[in-house]
Amino acid sequence: MTEAPDLPGDIASVVARALAEDIGSGDLTAGLLAERNVAAEVVLKEHAVLCGTAWFDEVFRQLDDSVAIEWRHPDGAALEPETVVCRLTGPARALLSGERTALNFLQTLSSTATAARSFAAAVEGTAARILDTRKTVPGLRSAQKYATRRGGAVNHRHGLYDAVLIKENHIAAHGSVAETVRLAHELAGSVLIEVEVENLEQLREALDTDAERLLLDNFTLSMLREAVAIRDAHSGLRKELEASGGIALANVRAVADTGVDWISVGAITKNVSATDFSMRIV
Amino acid sequence: MTEAPDLPGDIASVVARALAEDIGSGDLTAGLLAERNVAAEVVLKEHAVLCGTAWFDEVFRQLDDSVAIEWRHPDGAALEPETVVCRLTGPARALLSGERTALNFLQTLSSTATAARSFAAAVEGTAARILDTRKTVPGLRSAQKYATRRGGAVNHRHGLYDAVLIKENHIAAHGSVAETVRLAHELAGSVLIEVEVENLEQLREALDTDAERLLLDNFTLSMLREAVAIRDAHSGLRKELEASGGIALANVRAVADTGVDWISVGAITKNVSATDFSMRIV
Amino acid sequence: MTEAPDLPGDIASVVARALAEDIGSGDLTAGLLAERNVAAEVVLKEHAVLCGTAWFDEVFRQLDDSVAIEWRHPDGAALEPETVVCRLTGPARALLSGERTALNFLQTLSSTATAARSFAAAVEGTAARILDTRKTVPGLRSAQKYATRRGGAVNHRHGLYDAVLIKENHIAAHGSVAETVRLAHELAGSVLIEVEVENLEQLREALDTDAERLLLDNFTLSMLREAVAIRDAHSGLRKELEASGGIALANVRAVADTGVDWISVGAITKNVSATDFSMRIV
Amino acid sequence: MTEAPDLPGDIASVVARALAEDIGSGDLTAGLLAERNVAAEVVLKEHAVLCGTAWFDEVFRQLDDSVAIEWRHPDGAALEPETVVCRLTGPARALLSGERTALNFLQTLSSTATAARSFAAAVEGTAARILDTRKTVPGLRSAQKYATRRGGAVNHRHGLYDAVLIKENHIAAHGSVAETVRLAHELAGSVLIEVEVENLEQLREALDTDAERLLLDNFTLSMLREAVAIRDAHSGLRKELEASGGIALANVRAVADTGVDWISVGAITKNVSATDFSMRIV
Amino acid sequence: MTEAPDLPGDIASVVARALAEDIGSGDLTAGLLAERNVAAEVVLKEHAVLCGTAWFDEVFRQLDDSVAIEWRHPDGAALEPETVVCRLTGPARALLSGERTALNFLQTLSSTATAARSFAAAVEGTAARILDTRKTVPGLRSAQKYATRRGGAVNHRHGLYDAVLIKENHIAAHGSVAETVRLAHELAGSVLIEVEVENLEQLREALDTDAERLLLDNFTLSMLREAVAIRDAHSGLRKELEASGGIALANVRAVADTGVDWISVGAITKNVSATDFSMRIV
Amino acid sequence: MTEAPDLPGDIASVVARALAEDIGSGDLTAGLLAERNVAAEVVLKEHAVLCGTAWFDEVFRQLDDSVAIEWRHPDGAALEPETVVCRLTGPARALLSGERTALNFLQTLSSTATAARSFAAAVEGTAARILDTRKTVPGLRSAQKYATRRGGAVNHRHGLYDAVLIKENHIAAHGSVAETVRLAHELAGSVLIEVEVENLEQLREALDTDAERLLLDNFTLSMLREAVAIRDAHSGLRKELEASGGIALANVRAVADTGVDWISVGAITKNVSATDFSMRIV
Repeated sequence: MTEAPDLPGDIASVVARALAEDIGSGDLTAGLLAERNVAAEVVLKEHAVLCGTAWFDEVFRQLDDSVAIEWRHPDGAALEPETVVCRLTGPARALLSGERTALNFLQTLSSTATAARSFAAAVEGTAARILDTRKTVPGLRSAQKYATRRGGAVNHRHGLYDAVLIKENHIAAHGSVAETVRLAHELAGSVLIEVEVENLEQLREALDTDAERLLLDNFTLSMLREAVAIRDAHSGLRKELEASGGIALANVRAVADTGVDWISVGAITKNVSATDFSMRIV
Repeated sequence: MTEAPDLPGDIASVVARALAEDIGSGDLTAGLLAERNVAAEVVLKEHAVLCGTAWFDEVFRQLDDSVAIEWRHPDGAALEPETVVCRLTGPARALLSGERTALNFLQTLSSTATAARSFAAAVEGTAARILDTRKTVPGLRSAQKYATRRGGAVNHRHGLYDAVLIKENHIAAHGSVAETVRLAHELAGSVLIEVEVENLEQLREALDTDAERLLLDNFTLSMLREAVAIRDAHSGLRKELEASGGIALANVRAVADTGVDWISVGAITKNVSATDFSMRIV
Repeated sequence: MTEAPDLPGDIASVVARALAEDIGSGDLTAGLLAERNVAAEVVLKEHAVLCGTAWFDEVFRQLDDSVAIEWRHPDGAALEPETVVCRLTGPARALLSGERTALNFLQTLSSTATAARSFAAAVEGTAARILDTRKTVPGLRSAQKYATRRGGAVNHRHGLYDAVLIKENHIAAHGSVAETVRLAHELAGSVLIEVEVENLEQLREALDTDAERLLLDNFTLSMLREAVAIRDAHSGLRKELEASGGIALANVRAVADTGVDWISVGAITKNVSATDFSMRIV
Repeated sequence: MTEAPDLPGDIASVVARALAEDIGSGDLTAGLLAERNVAAEVVLKEHAVLCGTAWFDEVFRQLDDSVAIEWRHPDGAALEPETVVCRLTGPARALLSGERTALNFLQTLSSTATAARSFAAAVEGTAARILDTRKTVPGLRSAQKYATRRGGAVNHRHGLYDAVLIKENHIAAHGSVAETVRLAHELAGSVLIEVEVENLEQLREALDTDAERLLLDNFTLSMLREAVAIRDAHSGLRKELEASGGIALANVRAVADTGVDWISVGAITKNVSATDFSMRIV
Repeated sequence: MTEAPDLPGDIASVVARALAEDIGSGDLTAGLLAERNVAAEVVLKEHAVLCGTAWFDEVFRQLDDSVAIEWRHPDGAALEPETVVCRLTGPARALLSGERTALNFLQTLSSTATAARSFAAAVEGTAARILDTRKTVPGLRSAQKYATRRGGAVNHRHGLYDAVLIKENHIAAHGSVAETVRLAHELAGSVLIEVEVENLEQLREALDTDAERLLLDNFTLSMLREAVAIRDAHSGLRKELEASGGIALANVRAVADTGVDWISVGAITKNVSATDFSMRIV
Repeated sequence: MTEAPDLPGDIASVVARALAEDIGSGDLTAGLLAERNVAAEVVLKEHAVLCGTAWFDEVFRQLDDSVAIEWRHPDGAALEPETVVCRLTGPARALLSGERTALNFLQTLSSTATAARSFAAAVEGTAARILDTRKTVPGLRSAQKYATRRGGAVNHRHGLYDAVLIKENHIAAHGSVAETVRLAHELAGSVLIEVEVENLEQLREALDTDAERLLLDNFTLSMLREAVAIRDAHSGLRKELEASGGIALANVRAVADTGVDWISVGAITKNVSATDFSMRIV
């Protein structure tokens, strides 16, 4: 099984924290187990996109590096219920001490990857692609950004430092969209500059600036279509359009069909619907 | 507004991590704002139990301690949509730089408190009470354990170190339930000793031990009722019964009506259905 | 040699801190040693209960994982003076660089385990068992809680979050013991609820509540005996009695003979009487 | 009350760790207290040298900065039993939540300062001064090094990086003491270079090197006296002599009377005999 | 004095580390100072761009928050030798204990800002702008990225996660530039996609892809001019050109004059030429 | 290849931080590489003293411990341009993901070692030796102190806690140099006590104290020579003289020739002139 090439840089410290909070001063129950090696399997109990294998591995590496784990599927695989995703062998005590912490990572990150995949699948065949947002679970941003990629979505900015989103307040401070975008380019240079517009009037104004992308927040479908038409008719560099606000699985295809380039969906990372996995001794 | 008396001990470090991941090398957009003080309000957009005010406060304390926050409701308050939960005053830049991180805490922890409240409310009037589990979001256990309390549920063990749950594997290693419980008491002393039983036969055996509580995992309603009857008919110290497995809002009341003492619900902490808050400059 | 199954979850970070404080910018003396592999032994110089082997191992794992350590006794073993507890082989420089830090863990934790063992032995044959307390050395709570278990004592609560101890101040706030215990059960659920009583009058009142355990603080032996008699004569669920205050090796047996169930001893963890170990190249 | 000028640089992080381990997911008992401000006093219950006030302050600063603390004595003060060392005012809940953690620092560090003071007092009037060692409680080195200074002892090296102690093994690797010292000076430069000698023959050899100090490990009193005489008769730069090994309060004065310059005492920092403090609401 | 709006999110932890490494177990010299309040000034001794005021402030906030600091110039100000940049008042001991750590931040970050300003100034009037790189001092990336912005340069990617730079190895794995860029867009979505080209042939090939920017590594001036001409003559979306490799102050203007859009300069962040500041009691 | 025996104790945490800042949520480009093992070499491009191999190793150990690294030269080796310093074999993706972070350590620490070597070489044959200072890059003090040793300089104090430098302000507080030195010895014991003198008058006064070393700050060459003569003529223990202030490669030899014992040079650690290394797949 191949390790994903684009893993976050903080897995060891994130896992150490999780282990410390679960194990505390020691697993009181472990002493009741016979000291012997066993094999176990982790079984996925529902349709889902697997994600979090490196965190799962790290839990056991930190706990007892004699545990061996053989993955049958990589992060990003869309799997059926009752799929055995990996097989572990090692001391029974280590397997049981690490079980909950390891599964907590798997269930949380697979949930994020699965949500991303659902949205990505819903817009397949259109020109639109799904973006994640900064609405993440505190402390897990890099892990969730990784999971959304595994699900097939695309990372929007990681934080306030690697892209600029210009809103009403900023524009108010400088008198015009054009002037604000110009200043943003001067301040922030080569990062993505995006302008949030609230109506078609603002859209037209923003199309004349150097912003790379325009955010259409809470536009109706017909407004989105009109926005696309206005953009297409506009001469000069083609600007990307991003729809956001109130996007759900039920309406994301309709939004994509309007012709926007990007659809950002907070639900992918702010909600967690833990994927059902269980570990069983075999 | 009163501060909750039972806040976790790691709020400052949890918030520092969240701020670092969002702000990185600096909020590029903040420079586009005029330098002025503003007031803002955080509005709850749906029915929910508020939770996370101390984390919200800490975000701004770390960012710019000239921000003043006045809460109108405490953690644990069940609120209506469109409720203003707090009012902030301070530099516009600090308010906008901290907005997302602060709201991420509020939306995550209010979700947990709200879920706990829903389950607690569903069993109101019965003798059963709701327990949380160790199925938590990695890195947020102490915060989520706090939130479930604010929601009206009760904390089950915090980790592997402060209670003992005896399962099939442990019993197999020692020949009998009684011997395993005896050993657990010897090893672990004054913490809660609980035995997981899989059928009524095992239940009867466990009733003769010194365990304080018995976990009835994945029992049907009729099995639960029978288990309660057997327990009630059993002489000696009354043992608590805990139901778990497949508990949802739709069936939790029926489970409670069987007469069990505790119902543990993984869904409260493993799932997050981010509560909808927004901040607006006023 | 078997690894203890109930080790704390934070060993790696506790050891990293200790190594950083000893080695700083580098072991200046190591450069004076020839580069060669040697064998060494750690010898216990006094009667003691061994504890801390996992921390000792971790010191060398972090320093130079080519060091091999073979333990001849496990944590919890009661050993004679001049016992060789382990044999190490590896680069002379690594052995000497890690020696002091590794021994500091061994001497501190063996001291705690030995103290716990002394108290546990003193009450052997009685129904009483020894509890540790929250009077610990800052930063080492999980390690010391582990060591007291290895010594044969039982862990009292780990912190303010996993049990409730009701004192005078709390009762004063609610008018009666009964009402305070009721509220505590409502707030804290399934954790141990204990009430501190200061005289026999309060004891009688507390026996009528739902508290699981009563703390008899600074009672004389005759008061303790009377308290046990009152408890035994009381109908309803039998409550556990815990004696505390001024417990020393000299009087702990007498306290145990009064019939109390638990005796909590701050001295086990708040004092350290470093066990004498030395490492020698062989 | 004046703050000590030479406090360690890591107080905030050491205290954060201690608070996290005690408070965990929240002080369950705090909710039982009425919400009101109270005053409290910390009373010393035995003869001791006070130490740890900055750690005590930091506990409450991190917990609730509305707590005000007025110290009546500074770190380093030798006090009588029943001395009120400080008075606190603030929310009852904060005072009780922080009480144990704050007292744990005070009792541990006052113990170290008191031990240092006892040894320092025992050699008063002689030319000898007391040194601490690297035998410290893991994680508290900087705090303990501070406490020994407050007690009147002198800090020996902080770790392996800021002084060189040449032992038998090092000398064996280079053929002679003189060559080893020469190399040490070359490697380590301006730090203290000390040579451990095991007999008078080695002492004479070491006196001819450039080492600043000679460690006389486990010398009898008569050997120490002879060593001093040999040193005094030796021409060239006067070398300091340090006695170590088996030093206790009972014999430290006799050791000092031999004329050695320094006496290093592991017992000061490796043992903790928690000083008795209690906090009471007034 | 206004605080810069785009400060990094990890200032407190970066400063805590620096203070811990300088102060260790305590400032031994501080005890020699009289206890009194003094005023001090920090004087810049050479031409430089000031940067690091927030880190300087944080040093004293953590050390003793009674120190007051009044800045006379903001981060980013280009100043003359002998300029007083700030005035501090507070306890003499705190000022001297924090002096070195605080100045170390100022001298390091002002150096980076000054270097950035020199390069930015050298290309003023051309269409080219200066980019920083990932060649930073370990542990200070967010601080240095902030400093380059204050100097007038623009941040290139912060790390491997927020932009894609396609090199020879990547192209070799996929057969063509076009296919590699297509895959990169699929994998990485909305971040900047840049292709490194080594000659004009590769440049032409890359111009036909969807990459936003082309990196011309180690091109001669005449090759750069030819590259610009080819780009300008190319139909389709205008691609940005970035020159890198061997850029120094002596040649950066000539590079800018070739018409490239961006010039990335490792020297700005990989070298530190500490700006000369001194603090003096006044 | 031999590992240096005197490595700092915090390498793992320093490297973890650097990796986290570069890799963030994942190396987006790694996914474009074929999954295969490759060999690579790190080539030094200029004359330099190699330093930082342990940090380089640790980067790959944390990233993917299947990477094997064979060093051809140890830390401290003075090497020619185009020297291959090490050969790596392992997964192409791991090599490229770690390349920049690993090289950043090598280029920074080799710069420090090289600077130290230049100054050390310049004074070779004189009695003077080169000292580093506390003017270091924040967060890298232990690494830089190690690098200066590898370069052939000697570590001055690590921080405020392991030596005492008495300045004008301290003397003013106590009336005389002698009294201040006496107090310093009392406070700080066995650490180096050094007195800064500003003119020959103060030098004479300081020669009569127990200070071990005198710092001659900003003395002209003739003043330094006179100071040496005065010191040599002075009866009593010979005091070491340290020159500091305005030392550069151009004048350091002349300073050494005056007969001073030590020359402290801030430039070694406060400036970084990144050594040029590159990694290439072979």
